[in-house]
Amino acid sequence: MNKTYPNFNDIEIAHKRIQHQIHRTPVLTCTMLNEMFNCELFFKCENFQKVGAFKFRGASNAVLSCNEKEVKNGVATHSSGNHAAALALAAKLKNIKAHIVMPENSPQIKIDAVRNYGAEITFCIPTLEARETTLTQVVEKTGALVIHPYDNPLIIAGQGTCAKELLEDYPNLDIVMAPVGGGGLLSGTLLSVKHINKNIQVFASEPEMANDAFLSLQSGAFVPQKNPQTIADGLRTTLGEITYPIIKELCDNIICVTEQSIINATRLIWERMKIVVEPSSATVLAAVMEHNQLFKEKKVGLIISGGNVDFKEISKLF
Amino acid sequence: MNKTYPNFNDIEIAHKRIQHQIHRTPVLTCTMLNEMFNCELFFKCENFQKVGAFKFRGASNAVLSCNEKEVKNGVATHSSGNHAAALALAAKLKNIKAHIVMPENSPQIKIDAVRNYGAEITFCIPTLEARETTLTQVVEKTGALVIHPYDNPLIIAGQGTCAKELLEDYPNLDIVMAPVGGGGLLSGTLLSVKHINKNIQVFASEPEMANDAFLSLQSGAFVPQKNPQTIADGLRTTLGEITYPIIKELCDNIICVTEQSIINATRLIWERMKIVVEPSSATVLAAVMEHNQLFKEKKVGLIISGGNVDFKEISKLF
Repeated sequence: MNKTYPNFNDIEIAHKRIQHQIHRTPVLTCTMLNEMFNCELFFKCENFQKVGAFKFRGASNAVLSCNEKEVKNGVATHSSGNHAAALALAAKLKNIKAHIVMPENSPQIKIDAVRNYGAEITFCIPTLEARETTLTQVVEKTGALVIHPYDNPLIIAGQGTCAKELLEDYPNLDIVMAPVGGGGLLSGTLLSVKHINKNIQVFASEPEMANDAFLSLQSGAFVPQKNPQTIADGLRTTLGEITYPIIKELCDNIICVTEQSIINATRLIWERMKIVVEPSSATVLAAVMEHNQLFKEKKVGLIISGGNVDFKEISKLF
Repeated sequence: MNKTYPNFNDIEIAHKRIQHQIHRTPVLTCTMLNEMFNCELFFKCENFQKVGAFKFRGASNAVLSCNEKEVKNGVATHSSGNHAAALALAAKLKNIKAHIVMPENSPQIKIDAVRNYGAEITFCIPTLEARETTLTQVVEKTGALVIHPYDNPLIIAGQGTCAKELLEDYPNLDIVMAPVGGGGLLSGTLLSVKHINKNIQVFASEPEMANDAFLSLQSGAFVPQKNPQTIADGLRTTLGEITYPIIKELCDNIICVTEQSIINATRLIWERMKIVVEPSSATVLAAVMEHNQLFKEKKVGLIISGGNVDFKEISKLF
């Protein structure tokens, strides 16, 4: 993997490279939520992105950046989530093979999505060790190129196109906030926003139950994530070697939110805005709810990261 | 109640009258659903309308049409659903009182919505007879003007603005389809579409378990609805004295759909389009699923009537 850090120029190049195959997602507003929280909220809706998540931006950039030779044997990753589907679709559109290692307990709906995009799935037992070992075996067998879900400068540059679009549409924001898991979306957001206007604050929302980014920034030393149980399934990962330093340097604030706030915020968005968002995405509104004084009378861009959910599981908690 | 029939001129007047206070709702498309059903679907998203349903168009038109004297004692209706909230908000915006008779078993979320808009609620036992008797008592006591949820030319003209907007955005549709319950939305849709381009076919979707409109049109004589149990709670009503003749004259086809199709279509829209729609709305996609041959390679406008749902109840059925 290339450990160099991406910059805004890489994001601009990424945007030109991927714009023919991504959706420029809409920015929605909701008068009732603005009144409720006494601020102006601008929701950048990546739940409407292809494969239902921002991950398709990064995966598209990584796959489209490769030359024929590098990916003649396809691409590979291990993921039970949105990166798997995103890489599968990006590979399909480039007419190359995608090899995805998935834990055998992955939700059927996600397995089906990856399979529908024509990817080859290898199942493994659901531990990080098994996922990595299996991926190594798949790569040895196939010669496929591994595309890491977030600790990859091309992935980060791709994710940064989302905040770039948001600021093109709404340049006068006071704060932009994105959820933080592995940090790919947050790093890209930081690089875009701080380059475009360094006076705009960038916050991250993180579940209290998966607060490795918060602890890392608080202590000044990298704190890894240990088997977190948060409902925000997209945010159970640990910061990476590339994402951590970018976040440490540029992020203004990491706001931790409770599980109950995440559930309440998810429901509030479904109910009031009539859009389906996943709990990971709702952490941004949960942060506005829990720390309302930080946002009073501000213009706040919230990145809604995705909309892939298990309706039965989440509705039970409402 | 005024029994005269509305026409397209009334819809144009209604549109001018209400446009400052309604949302011009977006028309969404979904490549995956188009591929799945081999046609081009254009979803007119009234789930994004104020109060979460098209009902706000009609209620706004009715309330704004009244002079000060007519509504000096406010407006009144009986409803457990979207018309109650729509009338409450329309009245609030005109600074007049709304008196809503609601069955005592109405969902708490709907009671809260009506109350939040400042309406006065009178509860009654959950039978049509009790609702009507209680409404009569409320009107005798308050002198409020009754606004019927659908069998009222001003309401129908207001609902007709929805299809008018759809055809302004997409004039080249082959078919427009709306759900049919009491027939307010369908009548308005018929008057708009057939005036603008009589070659566009207008279909209605109706639950098999609440198929009074289908039976009425089939037999040529008005068949009332009897206590239907469909999950499409917005479509449990009977056609009215004004809506029935309009539908009989102009509607090209009424397509009945099963409960299972309605549930499947609801889930498909939530899952693929990431928008929250109520089961009544999903009947239009259920019709495309069940009678796919009628829609093959056609451009089809589907009116998504609303997005007010009980997440727990519906997700259980997924």
